[in-house]
Amino acid sequence: MISIQTIKRIKSLQQKKFREEEHCFVAETPKIVEEILNSSAYSVETVYGLKAWIDANWKRFARHTLEEVSPKELERISGLQTPNQVLAVVKKNDSLLDLGTIFSDMCLMLDDIRDPGNLGTILRIADWFGIKHVVCSNESVEYTNPKCIQASMGSFLRVSVYYGDLAQFLSDKKTDTPIYGTFMEGESIYQTELNPKACIVIGNEAHGISKPLEPLITKKIHIPSFSNEKNHAESLNASVATAILCSEFKRR
Amino acid sequence: MISIQTIKRIKSLQQKKFREEEHCFVAETPKIVEEILNSSAYSVETVYGLKAWIDANWKRFARHTLEEVSPKELERISGLQTPNQVLAVVKKNDSLLDLGTIFSDMCLMLDDIRDPGNLGTILRIADWFGIKHVVCSNESVEYTNPKCIQASMGSFLRVSVYYGDLAQFLSDKKTDTPIYGTFMEGESIYQTELNPKACIVIGNEAHGISKPLEPLITKKIHIPSFSNEKNHAESLNASVATAILCSEFKRR
Repeated sequence: MISIQTIKRIKSLQQKKFREEEHCFVAETPKIVEEILNSSAYSVETVYGLKAWIDANWKRFARHTLEEVSPKELERISGLQTPNQVLAVVKKNDSLLDLGTIFSDMCLMLDDIRDPGNLGTILRIADWFGIKHVVCSNESVEYTNPKCIQASMGSFLRVSVYYGDLAQFLSDKKTDTPIYGTFMEGESIYQTELNPKACIVIGNEAHGISKPLEPLITKKIHIPSFSNEKNHAESLNASVATAILCSEFKRR
Repeated sequence: MISIQTIKRIKSLQQKKFREEEHCFVAETPKIVEEILNSSAYSVETVYGLKAWIDANWKRFARHTLEEVSPKELERISGLQTPNQVLAVVKKNDSLLDLGTIFSDMCLMLDDIRDPGNLGTILRIADWFGIKHVVCSNESVEYTNPKCIQASMGSFLRVSVYYGDLAQFLSDKKTDTPIYGTFMEGESIYQTELNPKACIVIGNEAHGISKPLEPLITKKIHIPSFSNEKNHAESLNASVATAILCSEFKRR
């Protein structure tokens, strides 16, 4: 049995304010919790699992604090519509930004991505395409948002996420790494040279790349539409655009 | 002022059962409602708008039944966390499937896509890449699910969505259209021939392409990962994979 206080505390971690205060976040479902426990990237504070999950897993993760909860209790602490066997409270781990490392390989810069599902999906895409660093503007949603953790499907364990002032980072960089960004008037990605040692800036869901960043983009690109209709989708979702860009940069 | 009965009825359309009974669905936000009103694809039953929205729009859409609602009332009928000015009740419109037309150009077949956000995003991708037909298995989520309507950003107006037995459709087809599907053991999409007059089958989020469909796939393909880690994302999200496939088929 867990106390009402514990239930309240875990539920409070659905909110940014309390995640920041406690320096903790929650992750759910067997797949994601098991990946965290197997990884050395994050340390787990407590794992709350149903009896069946604990019976099957306690030997593998004996070093962690496991607490058995009833299905009713799991429902009360879970942020999911359909709670699934296990929830972990995980200690936050702020990655330290090293500009040299970041610009030595392909990286993504997210200029004010607000939707946690988009950020999680972008981390999963980065992981798939072997991109190790994702740099977010300070206004971007936190990667510890539960919806982001769930959408990333564990990829937040393998991709380092940093926060900061993107304009500052781009001004401070000492390499000649090209900075790509998508704009309506950009060159078609299918017809322009794409350097895989690049930094790709992904704009906000509604407003695209912000004005202060625009002059720091060294190459404006564009994913062309193949529709013949004059009325067609105005844009692609931010994570979908990221996927198409990563595929196009990496395949060459 | 709208009656409690009206409020209840509109809220009930958040559920599949009532959408089927009433043959109606809801769409929200100025962007999407205005696109519906401008389109001839669907007819609108009633538009519920805040005073400011109605004042700005009534002349353009005089033929429709407009009802003014207060912000409080909009909150009560809306399915969104942040209601946005206007909600429309729209009459459903079942597309009739014509196999000849579908297989004469590139089409997508969705084998049991369950997440409405994924389906909406896939419709937006299809719209962007000029794909006019999306055929869903009977077990797929309905495109009239409010989350799908919102995620599609109006693209459901330009892409015809059909439902039916995919195995039957593929067995009945009389053309030699190649049927592509993604499998772990498939050929890399970057290294194989891709015929743009194709049918691309997208599998379920968790289980991929179902067993009964597998023998009907004429070409197994795969989006390769570029990660050097032995542990990396196991898969891509269904809509992200669709985007990469469409980009690769269309760019050639």
